[in-house]
Amino acid sequence: MSSRQAALEFANKSKQDFLEDLIHFLKIPSISTLPEHNPDMLEAAQWLVSQMEKFQFKDVNIMPTDGHPIVYGSYDKAGKSAPTVLVYGHYDVQPVDPIDEWDNEPFKPQVRDGDIYARGASDMKGQVVAHLKAVESYLDSYDLPVNIKYLIEGEEEIGSPNLEKFLSQNEDLLHCDFCLNADSGILGVDTPSLAYSLRGLAYFEINLHGPESDLHSGTFGGAVINPGNVIAQVIAAMKDENGRIMLPGFYDDVVELAAAEREQLAQLPQTEEWWKEQSNTSALGGEFGYTATERATIRPTLDVNGLYSGFIGKGSKTVLPAKAMAKISMRLVPNQEPEKVRQSLETFMDKHIPAGITWEIDELSSALPGTIDLDSAIAKSAGEALRSVWNKSAIYKREGGTVPVVGMIKKVLGVDSLMLGFGLPDDNLHAPNEKFHVNNFHRGIETYIHFMDNLAK
Amino acid sequence: MSSRQAALEFANKSKQDFLEDLIHFLKIPSISTLPEHNPDMLEAAQWLVSQMEKFQFKDVNIMPTDGHPIVYGSYDKAGKSAPTVLVYGHYDVQPVDPIDEWDNEPFKPQVRDGDIYARGASDMKGQVVAHLKAVESYLDSYDLPVNIKYLIEGEEEIGSPNLEKFLSQNEDLLHCDFCLNADSGILGVDTPSLAYSLRGLAYFEINLHGPESDLHSGTFGGAVINPGNVIAQVIAAMKDENGRIMLPGFYDDVVELAAAEREQLAQLPQTEEWWKEQSNTSALGGEFGYTATERATIRPTLDVNGLYSGFIGKGSKTVLPAKAMAKISMRLVPNQEPEKVRQSLETFMDKHIPAGITWEIDELSSALPGTIDLDSAIAKSAGEALRSVWNKSAIYKREGGTVPVVGMIKKVLGVDSLMLGFGLPDDNLHAPNEKFHVNNFHRGIETYIHFMDNLAK
Repeated sequence: MSSRQAALEFANKSKQDFLEDLIHFLKIPSISTLPEHNPDMLEAAQWLVSQMEKFQFKDVNIMPTDGHPIVYGSYDKAGKSAPTVLVYGHYDVQPVDPIDEWDNEPFKPQVRDGDIYARGASDMKGQVVAHLKAVESYLDSYDLPVNIKYLIEGEEEIGSPNLEKFLSQNEDLLHCDFCLNADSGILGVDTPSLAYSLRGLAYFEINLHGPESDLHSGTFGGAVINPGNVIAQVIAAMKDENGRIMLPGFYDDVVELAAAEREQLAQLPQTEEWWKEQSNTSALGGEFGYTATERATIRPTLDVNGLYSGFIGKGSKTVLPAKAMAKISMRLVPNQEPEKVRQSLETFMDKHIPAGITWEIDELSSALPGTIDLDSAIAKSAGEALRSVWNKSAIYKREGGTVPVVGMIKKVLGVDSLMLGFGLPDDNLHAPNEKFHVNNFHRGIETYIHFMDNLAK
Repeated sequence: MSSRQAALEFANKSKQDFLEDLIHFLKIPSISTLPEHNPDMLEAAQWLVSQMEKFQFKDVNIMPTDGHPIVYGSYDKAGKSAPTVLVYGHYDVQPVDPIDEWDNEPFKPQVRDGDIYARGASDMKGQVVAHLKAVESYLDSYDLPVNIKYLIEGEEEIGSPNLEKFLSQNEDLLHCDFCLNADSGILGVDTPSLAYSLRGLAYFEINLHGPESDLHSGTFGGAVINPGNVIAQVIAAMKDENGRIMLPGFYDDVVELAAAEREQLAQLPQTEEWWKEQSNTSALGGEFGYTATERATIRPTLDVNGLYSGFIGKGSKTVLPAKAMAKISMRLVPNQEPEKVRQSLETFMDKHIPAGITWEIDELSSALPGTIDLDSAIAKSAGEALRSVWNKSAIYKREGGTVPVVGMIKKVLGVDSLMLGFGLPDDNLHAPNEKFHVNNFHRGIETYIHFMDNLAK
């Protein structure tokens, strides 16, 4: 019997035990944002350590940060020729408010109609335990086919404020071939999918300053430059009439889509009608020459997220504003870099802002885009694993959003992340009655078993 | 002795009496915005009535409105061949807060260093009394050289909410050749000036609606149209690179400046440096081909007064906003009309707003521009009157601002207004220690005496 077969058999006969372990983990109210739960945070970290120690993982440790600690543990017995996978997860969960809207107590997990209801079930204790149980299934009688490094943080739900520093300080320890980010989901219970690409982010606040203070628009209107008009002009100039972004060199690093991939994207169920329904808009728009799916996933964007100048209350005030502010974010695609985008934006502003207006740009957040080559062993291993378990081909998805952790890992460790998790779109993440599909918990374990073995081939 | 000479002599010997009458009027705390002062409002109106009755004016009346009443009185003995002047003023004053910052009680007038300190001294009881005393000076021994209709309202400081209706309901009663608006000032104690032109106003709020609700800019960015970007584009499109306003037909009704008037404007002390200092800006800008003074007075404008979309708090939120709002005002010059501007704006929006975005425009306020021909008898009569009193030429000013009352009178009665009053830029209007220059009160009386006689010639 192959080690894969043995692991699958062990997983199959251990279903009840595995579910009970998940329930145990879900009972720990590890809410990272509430200081009164700090002891629970530690208990959750210790439970993870106990699991890894059971496997005799190396360097198992609760590593301190300036906030909640990070749980680390590694396995290197697959040898230097086998790939090393950094498995990213988090053990913290969201608060439970509004508590009245829960049908069961959020930290007393309840299985109903094939789902397990508890805070953190889908986001993401279910997937953390699924991966641990895949590892355990192998180790019951064999070695693992790949090397593993667990990086399980306790601050994802509060924006991972200490993760980048931790990555930098432990770059050698975390050295790996790629990252498996299990904080993800599939399109439907019976629609296996995996996200192989995320957009990055370059998000800025732009402030323009004109007159020292607000002026009367009757007395001074026409004579002086109005920063409210100028901010409109500069934002408008950022795109041409075809929706192309006009920052200098903005597209230089953009990887153009291959025809084959465009065909593949066109076959997704995300039609133009679907986008209209999802966004509740009567008409779509954007960069000319690309479908809505392409524009939302593999093309970069430039969006106003916030805009302010002058008097915005009810009624009229004849004010000529002293300043204007815009929050502008750009979603980035491979191989764009936020720092280059910032420089390009500054060059653009320099050119477009007239004398009499001063300006500054503040970076609000940034993240590198990331992608796993669809033809790579990683993507193929994941796809085959999903097909083995679901008996149907997986949908390969590009995500339009940004996972900051993925950007940090790319930036510091230089590796891309494969998003392979088993949440569902209706799992009520961050909301009352969060749930995780029990059968997908088990299928997730099987998928990780297949995935590890596929990778090793 | 001519009637003018007799009136001037009477005014000269009555200086103390006239000042005492002003002081009496200033003691009445006619604050229109505070209901507890309603009896004072009536007392002020009654005092005006008593003055006009002393002159045996016709139809002297406290005419009701839905708010504070309007004092009316007319004189028609100059005959049908003489001009009829509608003299506009107001008997209400601003509140006195912050009371602690006054050096004397605001309704106990005090003369110090040549100024009379009291709430309403400059805005505008001083000028109302000055005109009444000019009339009284004639009537002591002669008839008036012109016909007069007094229109003295009690709601100017609260925006004249009932004036337009009153004008419409009394169109025949108020029929006149032009309006003398005494709610005005001169550039300096020894710098006589008069404003012969005001800009109008067309002020709109524009609302754009995109998706039904805010969307995640990662998931939907690029696929859907962002109203925050669109509002920037449409505002930017409203002007070309030379600062010309691109609303269709916007300049069709704009009266171009004659070379002689441009030369006259160029001689005003309002240099480019002066505008920079006054506006506290490092550089000016606006419509190409015109000076700052021209741009601020006799050229129309299009200014953003308010701008809003999405998230404008601290930090970042990756929101794709559902809507965007702009408050846009246009200062109008002869012979532009707010209603035509509105139609032009709607045509422009229709053309520039893409499918997927709905929009509406609300008018926040509007006023017709007004001007008195510099070559007219009215302007010349006023200029000569000022020169006779100050022994120097008056500066003819165009004002960039809008006086709503002037727009209403133009709209309903069809006549323009000459702004001829004697306030000073540092009179602390609407502020503590409001004052009026006593000597200018007397010079104002003399000026009105000359003006009436000049008009009759």
